[in-house]
Amino acid sequence: MQYNSVLENLKIYEAGKPIELVVREYGVDENSIIKLASNENPRGCSPMVQKEVCSDISKMNLYPDDSMYELKEGLAKRFSVDSQNIIIGAGSDQVISFGVHAKANKNNKVLMAKTTFAMYEIYARQTGTTILKTPSHQHNLQEFLEIYQNNKDISIIFLCLPNNPLGECLSRDEVYNFLDKINKETLVIIDGAYQEYAKYKDKKTQIEPNDLIKRYPNALYLGTFSKAYGLGGMRCGYGIADVNIIKALLKLRAPFNITTLSLKAAIVALRDEKFVENCIKENFEQMKIYEKFAKDLGFEFIESYTNFITLEFKNSKNSTEISEKLLKKGIIVRNLGAYGMNAIRVTIGTPEQNSRFMREFKEIYIDDMEG
Amino acid sequence: MQYNSVLENLKIYEAGKPIELVVREYGVDENSIIKLASNENPRGCSPMVQKEVCSDISKMNLYPDDSMYELKEGLAKRFSVDSQNIIIGAGSDQVISFGVHAKANKNNKVLMAKTTFAMYEIYARQTGTTILKTPSHQHNLQEFLEIYQNNKDISIIFLCLPNNPLGECLSRDEVYNFLDKINKETLVIIDGAYQEYAKYKDKKTQIEPNDLIKRYPNALYLGTFSKAYGLGGMRCGYGIADVNIIKALLKLRAPFNITTLSLKAAIVALRDEKFVENCIKENFEQMKIYEKFAKDLGFEFIESYTNFITLEFKNSKNSTEISEKLLKKGIIVRNLGAYGMNAIRVTIGTPEQNSRFMREFKEIYIDDMEG
Repeated sequence: MQYNSVLENLKIYEAGKPIELVVREYGVDENSIIKLASNENPRGCSPMVQKEVCSDISKMNLYPDDSMYELKEGLAKRFSVDSQNIIIGAGSDQVISFGVHAKANKNNKVLMAKTTFAMYEIYARQTGTTILKTPSHQHNLQEFLEIYQNNKDISIIFLCLPNNPLGECLSRDEVYNFLDKINKETLVIIDGAYQEYAKYKDKKTQIEPNDLIKRYPNALYLGTFSKAYGLGGMRCGYGIADVNIIKALLKLRAPFNITTLSLKAAIVALRDEKFVENCIKENFEQMKIYEKFAKDLGFEFIESYTNFITLEFKNSKNSTEISEKLLKKGIIVRNLGAYGMNAIRVTIGTPEQNSRFMREFKEIYIDDMEG
Repeated sequence: MQYNSVLENLKIYEAGKPIELVVREYGVDENSIIKLASNENPRGCSPMVQKEVCSDISKMNLYPDDSMYELKEGLAKRFSVDSQNIIIGAGSDQVISFGVHAKANKNNKVLMAKTTFAMYEIYARQTGTTILKTPSHQHNLQEFLEIYQNNKDISIIFLCLPNNPLGECLSRDEVYNFLDKINKETLVIIDGAYQEYAKYKDKKTQIEPNDLIKRYPNALYLGTFSKAYGLGGMRCGYGIADVNIIKALLKLRAPFNITTLSLKAAIVALRDEKFVENCIKENFEQMKIYEKFAKDLGFEFIESYTNFITLEFKNSKNSTEISEKLLKKGIIVRNLGAYGMNAIRVTIGTPEQNSRFMREFKEIYIDDMEG
């Protein structure tokens, strides 16, 4: 059977290996596995969320309130925007796909950093659009601007703030200066999946959606419950933008695009900010230990504004080998070899998980040096 | 801002009114509302599913096993197919969207019954394809065939077996005879969302996916956990087809397209067939009461192979008025006025819900006759 020609160029996203797969393929005992590969909150989610989701367990047969009234009201209050400025997605991922399908096509182009969230490219390819990337792995706005000025047909620019999978973050002022130079016909998607972490570490990186969308009617801010709120498995994110953008994206949203329990979880999660604060505080305390660990062992890391850290190796080390050896010990991390980097991305876990990672990693690393 | 031109023709799907909205807009007490509008299983889901989902409540932070190994194995065993013949979607809805985006485009056409599941058209419009519908509301394969033979550029044919929102169902033999006349380049999507009900009522309507895909490499069978399994709110469905079709559709699937708890719920649901059987048995016992009710009051109904019944009114009655009056009494049904029919679709509820519906409906209906 023949398919639409865009399918020929599609790549399938390679997810972090799940625990179940490591048990099956490597025969490692399930209880000894630690997964530091997908930037899941190691503290889970708020106990209040767990309790309220369980108390709604008899409603799994019922479709969610498709207007998502209560969740939108909660987000509108949190961000001082109107609920008409909000769209809910099955993860902020899905809002990316709406943005892409609304603007990108085979006659235009989208622009992103060389190493950034893989789904931007995957969704973009579904439209047959041309993908442009900056020469630098990390976000470099000068490079973005040069490419933008040399290509008049760019429909979307992606800025991942802070950037996954590398961890760096631009400041708000840099971003605003950049946005001032962008035509209002170009959709600029500001992916704030890790913004809760960035703003804790450095206020200067904080992008406030209400301020952003007032200044820039072409900006689409993305947020998620998957990271700081600890609900990665529930697939719930959101987009915040000028009402005209939201109206266009809503046309691409299928009804009931999140589950009844996800909707409940997200609504309740917004009520327990203390949980989120505590998680983020611990995250950056643990991050310091990783930074010291890297310095002590003598390898590079990228200063991170997120809940993960990217460790970069010299040529004598190989990130693929290191990842594989860790896997055999039941530790799952993300190898960034596929991005053309000799690096691994490690999610900041609980203190116990981090200690175990460092112990096992050190053994591999020193073995490797002797080998 | 300019958007891709296909957005201009997109309609937004109007979901059945959720209970929350009726509480807000009509001021009806939440506990007195019954929703017979979205074909949700009135018995909820298996207690075994509720228990096991709750016991996984601490895993909401973890992304699901994206290979969906265990669920695919369960479905493969159930349907005697290989797990490579299966794709999982966020509801069978999402598998429809994959099929549409794989085949339909602005240079070809898709064919469906005049009155059938609204999402076929909504997804199809996203591709800019041309939509062809049969003259008859219900499935008429002679009409399908004539249109097919007069249009050589049909990329997809949708058959909804049984048909939502009308309830009728073709027999397997009719469907096979039809498929024999269809070119293998045309994707035929057989939507079996309500097949569990149909095959209980009449074995002759049963489409067995393993037999179907062996005979027809261009057929895509859809199933769901939303109806008989009582998991509508969890958004989990599946497609079964020749491995070449599945490989193409997998390219369009984003990672983690169902939630961690949905995956668990579906896996466990497959282990409690007794629950499903009991629900279906009760459904058709109650259906008989609806049929007698319609005959006694003297209006038409469509014989239904599903968990809902479509009640058709003469010209003196108006389905929009009836639906509105029911709503004020806290009873939510689906008005089929938007489909150009003077009819309502009523989900078969519990015996208590059905009695209440009939009591309130009768009052409205007789009032109406006197008015």
